[in-house]
Amino acid sequence: MSRIVMKFGGTSVADIDRIRIVAARVKEETRAGNQVAVVVSAMSGTTDQLIKWATQASPLHDAREYDTVVSAGEQITAGLLAMALQDMGVSARSWLGWQVPFHTNNIHSSARIENIDTAQMIDRLEDNIVCVMAGFQGISSDNRITTLGRGGSDTSAVALAAALGADRCDIYTDVEGVYTTDPRIVPSARKLDKITYEEMLEMASLGAKILQTRSVAMAMNHGVRVQVLSSFTNTPGTLVVDEEEIVEKQVVSGIAYAKNEAKITLVGVENTPGIAGEIFGPLASGHVNVDMIVQNISEDGKKTDLTFTVPEGDVEKAVAILKASGHVKYAKLMADKEVVKISVIGVGMRSHAGVAARMFETLAEKGINIQVISTSEIKISVLIGAEYNELAVRALHTAFGLDSE
Amino acid sequence: MSRIVMKFGGTSVADIDRIRIVAARVKEETRAGNQVAVVVSAMSGTTDQLIKWATQASPLHDAREYDTVVSAGEQITAGLLAMALQDMGVSARSWLGWQVPFHTNNIHSSARIENIDTAQMIDRLEDNIVCVMAGFQGISSDNRITTLGRGGSDTSAVALAAALGADRCDIYTDVEGVYTTDPRIVPSARKLDKITYEEMLEMASLGAKILQTRSVAMAMNHGVRVQVLSSFTNTPGTLVVDEEEIVEKQVVSGIAYAKNEAKITLVGVENTPGIAGEIFGPLASGHVNVDMIVQNISEDGKKTDLTFTVPEGDVEKAVAILKASGHVKYAKLMADKEVVKISVIGVGMRSHAGVAARMFETLAEKGINIQVISTSEIKISVLIGAEYNELAVRALHTAFGLDSE
Repeated sequence: MSRIVMKFGGTSVADIDRIRIVAARVKEETRAGNQVAVVVSAMSGTTDQLIKWATQASPLHDAREYDTVVSAGEQITAGLLAMALQDMGVSARSWLGWQVPFHTNNIHSSARIENIDTAQMIDRLEDNIVCVMAGFQGISSDNRITTLGRGGSDTSAVALAAALGADRCDIYTDVEGVYTTDPRIVPSARKLDKITYEEMLEMASLGAKILQTRSVAMAMNHGVRVQVLSSFTNTPGTLVVDEEEIVEKQVVSGIAYAKNEAKITLVGVENTPGIAGEIFGPLASGHVNVDMIVQNISEDGKKTDLTFTVPEGDVEKAVAILKASGHVKYAKLMADKEVVKISVIGVGMRSHAGVAARMFETLAEKGINIQVISTSEIKISVLIGAEYNELAVRALHTAFGLDSE
Repeated sequence: MSRIVMKFGGTSVADIDRIRIVAARVKEETRAGNQVAVVVSAMSGTTDQLIKWATQASPLHDAREYDTVVSAGEQITAGLLAMALQDMGVSARSWLGWQVPFHTNNIHSSARIENIDTAQMIDRLEDNIVCVMAGFQGISSDNRITTLGRGGSDTSAVALAAALGADRCDIYTDVEGVYTTDPRIVPSARKLDKITYEEMLEMASLGAKILQTRSVAMAMNHGVRVQVLSSFTNTPGTLVVDEEEIVEKQVVSGIAYAKNEAKITLVGVENTPGIAGEIFGPLASGHVNVDMIVQNISEDGKKTDLTFTVPEGDVEKAVAILKASGHVKYAKLMADKEVVKISVIGVGMRSHAGVAARMFETLAEKGINIQVISTSEIKISVLIGAEYNELAVRALHTAFGLDSE
């Protein structure tokens, strides 16, 4: 007997027919003798409607009221799935964040989980009652509903799995698992049976959109075995696990890309001590997340060109902040949204040299100019012109031997 | 300075524009120096959608899950109205049933209020913060969401007004107040400035659809001054008050009608002791609400004809119950849905004779046959053929001097 957490996203519970399909799948797991807790998102479309209403009611949200409004979506799904399960003869009950209780801090709309009191839920699980928890929501110390931020249901599920000491956390989604790259770009992309937390973290943060980054980090920290699988097909998905569990390590596990990047270049910056702080300090204060940074110093060391990337949606804000901060002297400021970040990811890189060289050669062969480079222990990212995205991803996928037979 | 409770129904909060109109009206009351608590229903249409989903998920509801699902509607409105108020510069916060807490018993979907803990809310009211409470919902002793049954937001509002010791409970609706009769039938019907609880109770239960019966009974028991008024116009409504507050008592205050009645007649029932119990006992057990009852005994006293009314929707059930209970011997069973109950209502009747006589004469003059009569201290009801409804209401309205000049 295992204890498992199953999480279903908005498209998996989009209407009552799909909720019944979800219920049937949950029933299978209970029939297999497992104790099952389920975490659900809002029916797709519901959250958007609620957000629209909230924005119309007040363009400047009171985050406490906003959370009260948007959390209703998951509440509805939790009740409906419990009912659908009961209708199939499966004992079930719903749990809202405040009922568990699922304690968070008081930072509304992006609350962090502090403590989950699972005593009652474990009693029910041991009585073979399916516990359907509304994802995305918790309760603050002053008794208000909080939400974990968009996509927070993944985090709810992983946190619940950790708190329940679950054997597995299955994240059901609309894809069959984690692929070596986006199958829409590379039809020969392969589904990975296993991937390490670190690799998944890079994949997630680089735009693979399968699992919320925060949930992967949490799974890694608590050693929760996460499986990503499709709610529409009945095939095994991708297991996200510790590196030790993967016997045959690939040097490169996948190629990720992120289109929502923009490049800002400051040309001819006066190179004085503390200049980087004067540039990036105000951006950080303005909540602009700077990712890649490259600095080239001129021969005499007096001028420098500084290039960095920010989320596409923050370009105007970043430019405004830079222009407003009068301390920094530069000759020219250029912003370019027509860029894409391509990353080659794999824990095997740690023990294999030559990955970067092969990456650069492959891109050079296709005549693709690299604008910015950044690396970590298990990934190499490059910024290139947006029009080369598909070409680069396909070439790298082949070059690193990821194409299926 | 007064403390008031304002309640807005589903049509008053049907979309964001209307919620902003509601917010503006609440703002007026705060600007007038009042402490204001607001009770809201779900946006019209929302509850129906939620009920539809719940019914599709499981035709046989688990009432606890059902309440979890449908209560989301009021939760959404409460948050949105709080936001709209803040957007207009009015301090406000939302309260869900479990946050107040608004304690009820454990009878889900038709829970009864047990105790409202208003300590926190009163603190906020005294700080001039508008408290927006989600109507219709409460919390049971086992920490689950309960609902008070359809239309329960009126009851929430009156109960909150009683618990807060409010000076007034304003029920905003889509009519301008309580009329002497339905203005759609009698264009010369007058809006009443004041009406007694007892009269309102009769009006409400007789189908005037303005206030939920239960909320009127509660207002009467707790001495809550209720005002019924329109959320679409800015005119005074009808005040529901103690009889002592009405100086010039009308003999007749209004004419009500109820179309959703049906008549069942048992012809030739053997008149033995206890026969009434044998007929009405099983109906009561089957939750069929019997209203008017008339019995005619034949000359020899051995046979009796028994006529009574039940809600139109329960006719088939009532007939089935009567046929299934073998004890009762009768010659013939007749059911007739083509009837309407017309009532003449007024606390002044207590001290005025002749109301019944004038009612019967008026109907006789129009050639309308009375099928069943029932009376109470402050009303006389008759059952007549449904086709005479408008004719009877108009004739009685004129006969009792209710037409406006």
